[in-house]
Amino acid sequence: MPARYRLTYFNGRARAELIRLIFHAAGEEFEDNRIDTGSWQQLKPNTPFGALPILEFDGLVLAQSLAIARFLAREFGLAGKARFDEALVDSVVDTSNDILGDIVKIIFNEDDKLKRENQKKFVENILPFTLQSLENMFAKHGKGSGYIIGPDLTYADLAVFNALDQAVQAGLVQWQFFDRYKHISGLLRRLEETPRIAGYLKTRPHTPY
Amino acid sequence: MPARYRLTYFNGRARAELIRLIFHAAGEEFEDNRIDTGSWQQLKPNTPFGALPILEFDGLVLAQSLAIARFLAREFGLAGKARFDEALVDSVVDTSNDILGDIVKIIFNEDDKLKRENQKKFVENILPFTLQSLENMFAKHGKGSGYIIGPDLTYADLAVFNALDQAVQAGLVQWQFFDRYKHISGLLRRLEETPRIAGYLKTRPHTPY
Repeated sequence: MPARYRLTYFNGRARAELIRLIFHAAGEEFEDNRIDTGSWQQLKPNTPFGALPILEFDGLVLAQSLAIARFLAREFGLAGKARFDEALVDSVVDTSNDILGDIVKIIFNEDDKLKRENQKKFVENILPFTLQSLENMFAKHGKGSGYIIGPDLTYADLAVFNALDQAVQAGLVQWQFFDRYKHISGLLRRLEETPRIAGYLKTRPHTPY
Repeated sequence: MPARYRLTYFNGRARAELIRLIFHAAGEEFEDNRIDTGSWQQLKPNTPFGALPILEFDGLVLAQSLAIARFLAREFGLAGKARFDEALVDSVVDTSNDILGDIVKIIFNEDDKLKRENQKKFVENILPFTLQSLENMFAKHGKGSGYIIGPDLTYADLAVFNALDQAVQAGLVQWQFFDRYKHISGLLRRLEETPRIAGYLKTRPHTPY
């Protein structure tokens, strides 16, 4: 029987990997439809906003990576419980997404000098500042659970993991960079040891971005 | 009696105007706290992610413009009703926010040649393509209501208005540019004639961005 959900994106992590992590963390089946740029040119006019990823299910189509991620997180109970907690979760996801945006800007910058400048600014300023902000969120809202908006795992935890994973994948920092951040490094270890997530991380495709 | 909600941002539209429009459309009181860069330097270390806008209420603090907008839209019944409609609304808001991001990139680009190139690409390609995508959303999901995800006004409508308003404010296009898009121009007229919104538009501060 085909999976209920089909996620379509390129063969990369970038803007789709958070969604994949949500499916895996929830233990929900989905078709991980990775397409090449030729197929994309054919598909593009039939997508809501001419961009990937898109999610299809039950005859419906949804676009925009964060709208998809939030919708699935709510379906699977990973979006936070109280309404204000949901908003805090969203704010952490948006902050993680800003980090992803910075990484993409560095990776695809064709001006070598500007690229080096942006890379330096990212590693020396933006990333440490954001990591410290996230540490403070754990302390203030984690309720001692080890998750950023406690007491349970939410897609905010997955978004933080994903942003840092992509910073490492892009060669901007190494995993050890996060050791000095107690809550974050604790979360990373915990997610890597969660069987559903660990299983996916071991078998997911190697891609350049 | 002071207002329950306080929104803090710079004296500009940019990333806060959608939130202001939500308050006004809902007829909810708020303190529109516009600060200068000196005050910002003092405040910055005490904000969740070192960025504005922030929303304060009931002793709580929330950051990230879209997390704030969504939270308030849900509080005020402007986020869509069924869960999938909420996701569609979010996807339109994200798309409108991408347009805002393009505008900001053009406004603050210090390289004149690149600025002109980006401006041309925005006006000739990105904006028309996005407007046509939004037209299709009205046709598919508006349920004949004149709102983009019908049957009621949502913050997606306000987000579309806000993105196009900021494109005009930035001098990239004029209002007539949208006349050829039937649903969008209909929405713009309707919002401008909605008393609560019209009242705000007439009296809001003139700012450069």
